[in-house]
Amino acid sequence: MAQHYLSIDTPAVLIDVAILRANIARMAEMAQTAQLEHWPHTKTHKIPEIAKQQVAAGSPGICVAKIGEAEVMAKAGLGPIFIANHIVGEAKLARLAQLAQDVEVSVCVDSMAAAEPLSAAFERRGARLQVLMEIDTGAHRCGVPPDGAPALARKLLPLPGLELAGIMTYAGLLPGKFSEDDQRQVAKLEAETMARVAEELRAVGADIRRISGGSTPRARFYGAGCGLTEFRPGTYVYNDVNCIDLGAATEADCAFTILATVVSRPGAQRATLDAGSKALTTDAAKISPGHGRVLKCAGAAITHLDEEHAYVDLSEAEHELAIGDKVRIVPNHVCPASNLHDRAYIIEREEVVEILPIAARGRSQ
Amino acid sequence: MAQHYLSIDTPAVLIDVAILRANIARMAEMAQTAQLEHWPHTKTHKIPEIAKQQVAAGSPGICVAKIGEAEVMAKAGLGPIFIANHIVGEAKLARLAQLAQDVEVSVCVDSMAAAEPLSAAFERRGARLQVLMEIDTGAHRCGVPPDGAPALARKLLPLPGLELAGIMTYAGLLPGKFSEDDQRQVAKLEAETMARVAEELRAVGADIRRISGGSTPRARFYGAGCGLTEFRPGTYVYNDVNCIDLGAATEADCAFTILATVVSRPGAQRATLDAGSKALTTDAAKISPGHGRVLKCAGAAITHLDEEHAYVDLSEAEHELAIGDKVRIVPNHVCPASNLHDRAYIIEREEVVEILPIAARGRSQ
Repeated sequence: MAQHYLSIDTPAVLIDVAILRANIARMAEMAQTAQLEHWPHTKTHKIPEIAKQQVAAGSPGICVAKIGEAEVMAKAGLGPIFIANHIVGEAKLARLAQLAQDVEVSVCVDSMAAAEPLSAAFERRGARLQVLMEIDTGAHRCGVPPDGAPALARKLLPLPGLELAGIMTYAGLLPGKFSEDDQRQVAKLEAETMARVAEELRAVGADIRRISGGSTPRARFYGAGCGLTEFRPGTYVYNDVNCIDLGAATEADCAFTILATVVSRPGAQRATLDAGSKALTTDAAKISPGHGRVLKCAGAAITHLDEEHAYVDLSEAEHELAIGDKVRIVPNHVCPASNLHDRAYIIEREEVVEILPIAARGRSQ
Repeated sequence: MAQHYLSIDTPAVLIDVAILRANIARMAEMAQTAQLEHWPHTKTHKIPEIAKQQVAAGSPGICVAKIGEAEVMAKAGLGPIFIANHIVGEAKLARLAQLAQDVEVSVCVDSMAAAEPLSAAFERRGARLQVLMEIDTGAHRCGVPPDGAPALARKLLPLPGLELAGIMTYAGLLPGKFSEDDQRQVAKLEAETMARVAEELRAVGADIRRISGGSTPRARFYGAGCGLTEFRPGTYVYNDVNCIDLGAATEADCAFTILATVVSRPGAQRATLDAGSKALTTDAAKISPGHGRVLKCAGAAITHLDEEHAYVDLSEAEHELAIGDKVRIVPNHVCPASNLHDRAYIIEREEVVEILPIAARGRSQ
């Protein structure tokens, strides 16, 4: 007998398989239109089975944020893997070298201080690691400024054990600059800057083949010849309130929801759900107030959270919520929400068709 | 050979065992002074071995937030257990009844809609469940208002399978009302309100033996005869930036830190650490700006986080941070941070003496 999703204990992760498939197909199409390789960032879902669907849709490789995630994905047969992060420290170097024996792997660099130990670790093993230099195109997270790239490239190129094969960036949006035009501008500047840096690095002798950028909201703004060769959207697989806020998705495109139960009605206009910051995170959305969107109860507003509860203001809600009712919540930011749960219930229409372990959850090292 | 904590891969949870022990002893003393039973809320650490230390210090029972947490604690031999939460839904009722066969358990109620299925589930098994009515003393999270308590008690008392043995509350602080005086006021009002409600429930025939309140920051404000019979501080075991902000702890009392590595220096005044919202959460502190306190680097400010990185402004920092350096961060809110990690490294002075699984992590159901 098939299980209806409403019989699942709460809080729980539900993934609507039809929406998931449509999201994967749509991004594959966008990649094709923009003539970009799509290396999906799998930190959003952390589930090898979903990564395989992304590869089946045409991705030549996948991204992860951590070596631990890469280990899980490689064990499931996935690769090549781009660890879109900086690898520092003896323990990680040893694991990376081990991993590179099993799967084609690439990582970021933005300093000689991090590159030299990487070089030594791979040279010692007679191996060669593909690295992408991170360029800071304005988000000021990591990376060298564009005009510092040639100087770093000159120092990286002679290092044994490393191959400077590309550049990558994460171009964030400035606070409050979330309009369609703002986003198009960022995407344009990002791709043009990266293309220019790539040329400058080629001029100093680097064989730059990979120019990596992008994100789910910006994916729609890249066209053929934009300057990038690949992009890394990941959130698109599920979408979330941020994606809706940025115009990259609608509520109907959100594949991931948290199923929650009404456990208290502490006032005429208030309902308490059993999903709090340990199920949803406290991440704020770019524009929308509150802590996620309650499906099928327009006007219901999650005004605050504690660790185990969401507090819903029903004063503008289209209908009541009674103790025992179950609702589905689209999180503000789905990637860290996904990381809070051990398993995901895959549903087709209203039935549970599969339960998948979120195998790379918590692989923060 | 003992392992120095600096050789642990990052991000990682470090727990300083000397501070932990001192925190446990200090709260046991506060409980004794106030003549309150201390039922420590173990959602902070989720580690049975630490719960056992709390019991050894005099606690007659422990609190948890979820049945899943209770199951882990009971399996480790801990009990009685107060699940300081509302149990709603068939799946949870079955698990609760099962759990109650192995350990003395109590739960919250604040409605007949939730109490009736509980009653039916326990009556069916010829068992009796101890319940504490949740009173809303102003935080508006769950619970009935004080003046609604007698009416609910009259309806609860005839229910078979349930024993209304007490009342409980969580009295939150109002936004911005964080001074010593504000907190003392809240503690006073909380305890007095609860004592009055208890009297009113006794007057309608309830045998109220447990009057439960409290929190780590408020623990110091209760005195003998305050009106409560027990309290549930949990965060004290580790402490965090919130506890410092509220004057309940100093930096030296913080037993839990996240060990992180500097992985990038994207500017002269900026350092990037490999611990982001997936290691620290995005929870804001009550008063302190930023995302946690960097130990032994006064003036270093974590200005923002992404999922895998903390961005540190070094412009006011007492010293530089180089790529590869490791630092320890006290999180703003330790309970959800603890929930992000699979294991904790217990350190004594600078050596790892034990690695404990955070066994009840992620038990959100």
